[in-house]
Amino acid sequence: MKAYKDMSKDELLTLKAALDEEYKTLEGEGLNLNMARGKPGFSQLALSMPMLDVINSESDMRTVLGNDTRNYGDLDGIGESRKLIADMMAVQKDNVIVCGNSSLNIMYDTIARSMTHGVMGGIPWSKQDKVKFLCPVPGYDRHFKITEFFDIEMINIPLYDDGPDMDMVEKYVNGDPAVKGIWCVPKYSNPTGISYSDETVKRFANLNPAAEDFRIYWDNAYCIHHLYDDIQDEILNILTECEKAGNPDMVYIFTSTSKISFPGSGISAIASSLKNIEHIKSQMSIQTIGHDKINQLRHSRFFKDINGLRNHMKLHAELLRPKFEAVLNTLEKELAGLEIGSWIKPRGGYFISFNSLPGCAKNIVEKCKNLGVILTDAGATFPYGKDPEDSNIRIAPTFPTPEEMEQAAKVFVLCVKLASVEKYL
Amino acid sequence: MKAYKDMSKDELLTLKAALDEEYKTLEGEGLNLNMARGKPGFSQLALSMPMLDVINSESDMRTVLGNDTRNYGDLDGIGESRKLIADMMAVQKDNVIVCGNSSLNIMYDTIARSMTHGVMGGIPWSKQDKVKFLCPVPGYDRHFKITEFFDIEMINIPLYDDGPDMDMVEKYVNGDPAVKGIWCVPKYSNPTGISYSDETVKRFANLNPAAEDFRIYWDNAYCIHHLYDDIQDEILNILTECEKAGNPDMVYIFTSTSKISFPGSGISAIASSLKNIEHIKSQMSIQTIGHDKINQLRHSRFFKDINGLRNHMKLHAELLRPKFEAVLNTLEKELAGLEIGSWIKPRGGYFISFNSLPGCAKNIVEKCKNLGVILTDAGATFPYGKDPEDSNIRIAPTFPTPEEMEQAAKVFVLCVKLASVEKYL
Repeated sequence: MKAYKDMSKDELLTLKAALDEEYKTLEGEGLNLNMARGKPGFSQLALSMPMLDVINSESDMRTVLGNDTRNYGDLDGIGESRKLIADMMAVQKDNVIVCGNSSLNIMYDTIARSMTHGVMGGIPWSKQDKVKFLCPVPGYDRHFKITEFFDIEMINIPLYDDGPDMDMVEKYVNGDPAVKGIWCVPKYSNPTGISYSDETVKRFANLNPAAEDFRIYWDNAYCIHHLYDDIQDEILNILTECEKAGNPDMVYIFTSTSKISFPGSGISAIASSLKNIEHIKSQMSIQTIGHDKINQLRHSRFFKDINGLRNHMKLHAELLRPKFEAVLNTLEKELAGLEIGSWIKPRGGYFISFNSLPGCAKNIVEKCKNLGVILTDAGATFPYGKDPEDSNIRIAPTFPTPEEMEQAAKVFVLCVKLASVEKYL
Repeated sequence: MKAYKDMSKDELLTLKAALDEEYKTLEGEGLNLNMARGKPGFSQLALSMPMLDVINSESDMRTVLGNDTRNYGDLDGIGESRKLIADMMAVQKDNVIVCGNSSLNIMYDTIARSMTHGVMGGIPWSKQDKVKFLCPVPGYDRHFKITEFFDIEMINIPLYDDGPDMDMVEKYVNGDPAVKGIWCVPKYSNPTGISYSDETVKRFANLNPAAEDFRIYWDNAYCIHHLYDDIQDEILNILTECEKAGNPDMVYIFTSTSKISFPGSGISAIASSLKNIEHIKSQMSIQTIGHDKINQLRHSRFFKDINGLRNHMKLHAELLRPKFEAVLNTLEKELAGLEIGSWIKPRGGYFISFNSLPGCAKNIVEKCKNLGVILTDAGATFPYGKDPEDSNIRIAPTFPTPEEMEQAAKVFVLCVKLASVEKYL
């Protein structure tokens, strides 16, 4: 394989002619494939269908403690669901509030309350001159949308294979009192799939923030979302590490079962220090009388315990591996040696992150779209939708079937090649 | 019956001795009854148990339009649940967003967004010097808690048999640009049980607010919660009236099935003009990917249509009537003619509102508590928990059985008598 950068103009023109031909053929095929969002596939959803039988009209609707899940009460979630989710988050039950169907909603609410009421008695962010958030990039577009919505200035922090650039994180957090938070997806990161090293987690826990109301927003969305049985990422427990470092209140951890049971009909949670949790509960009590406890009961009875969750995720992994591998094999087979793109082989999570040559991502996404393959918008993985390099593309391989995924991947590599040739010409 | 106010000191002393005796006897009985919150009773919850069979592992999980309710999508709710709730709210489907399990949460979010982002492009309330809300009193404590939480100044407006004092409402709304909203429970009001007259609704619709970002917060929580088949309150459609009056965007309507299906596991909704709904949806898209659509499907398939809802509410009414009547009959039998309290006989809703002699409410609630009968805190029905007359007590007769309710009512009237005698002595 000859790298594109080493090709002569003539070689590039010949190559382009062949690629154009291939492109034209595919144009005629009228494909309709969506790799845009991290949606579970049909077969994954089917895995959770038996959950819908667990609670029926004959069920005892009381919690272990005897509370009627059908009536008001239990603002912080029923005991058994708090235990289940606490085990999933590797924290104690008392550190957890189990909420409604969306961890994104909890994150939004946490930021919204900080805007209007400050963090644990601090000055409301809306009354402060400037509020900034650090955003490891590429990252999760919906995180960035929240901070953008609240006019919080976002600062890009490069995300490496072992986590964010911690020198930069320390410089900003420890030096600038306007920096109030950082968005993290510490395990099987969205979109790059990397997990934070122990060293990274420890440096997070040992931050010495200039702002008292600084918090780490630790979105552990993919905490048990392994793709393989034998090679699994594990990360250090941030809550424990923060305690050890004398920063017990510095982190909020979020998770949900959106990609375990049903997206939109799962349960979600926030975990933090007892002090933070008490404060959040007192504020939450204004907003709601409580979350959907019948659905919490449904989840608790179906999964039973952390082993139930883990076994369930093994079944997911079996369905997801072929889809990820369809993409990865195609990338490897078609792009290796061409030096027109790089990617990481994730061991879990929901995405494959691809970096094209600078200035090519938008073009690739556009070309794919013309062929009926929808990708996440180029730039979406950066604050304000602006990738300074126009290079990162998030591939979400979970929703199509493996066959469709293979077809989509072929379209993708063709468009990568074409856009790269165009760049060099 | 001799009115207490006409009794001599001797007569009052004799009466007090007898009442004290009765009180002592009841003290020994170790009662444990709760009339504090508007919680459905066990038998009401049982009515909705078959709903839990409607969706099971064999179900077709697609909406009428073919969307998979198990996956992401349908931010504004699935079509069939929007239709169901729209019919319940007497508005068009396009005017409705069906949300999660709590209308209180929607109200909170609506206020929270107004604080940080303003109302439809207006200046955020947090950036305005002063924000005020009108609060018809007695009213719903959780409404007042929201406005208090956001440091919004609350102004008491007397609530009469046909609605709030509209002269005052017009004076404040039309005259003071700091007045941004009014909390209304227009039908079977919490706690007085009254419904707004056509005249009242029309005057609301024809307000001429000094503030462009003024909205009516129309919490139609009890829209189909009749107690009787033959005498039912109906109120004018506020959305239609606002349109007619040239104020199409002036009202947000809220409701939920919390007291139809399951509190905490129902579905909730906001209705408003298309312009408001579009704006809310655009903001809501930052907060969540969507609400629990499986639960929306469950509700839609169980109730089918508005007639299904109405029939279901008839069954509720059959269970609730004896409880309400146990209280009302006891009040009538024990207090008529004594001139120590007044109450309204509600035709629907969840409460009976009692007005004691001024300065007696706290004492009555305290005395009841000593006998094991828990009432809503005196003052709770007023902003800041302060009833200037210390007179209003909210009785929630729905949770205990009719027998318990009768017993609780007997305790209540005894404590009313005793507190009233103490006042006159």
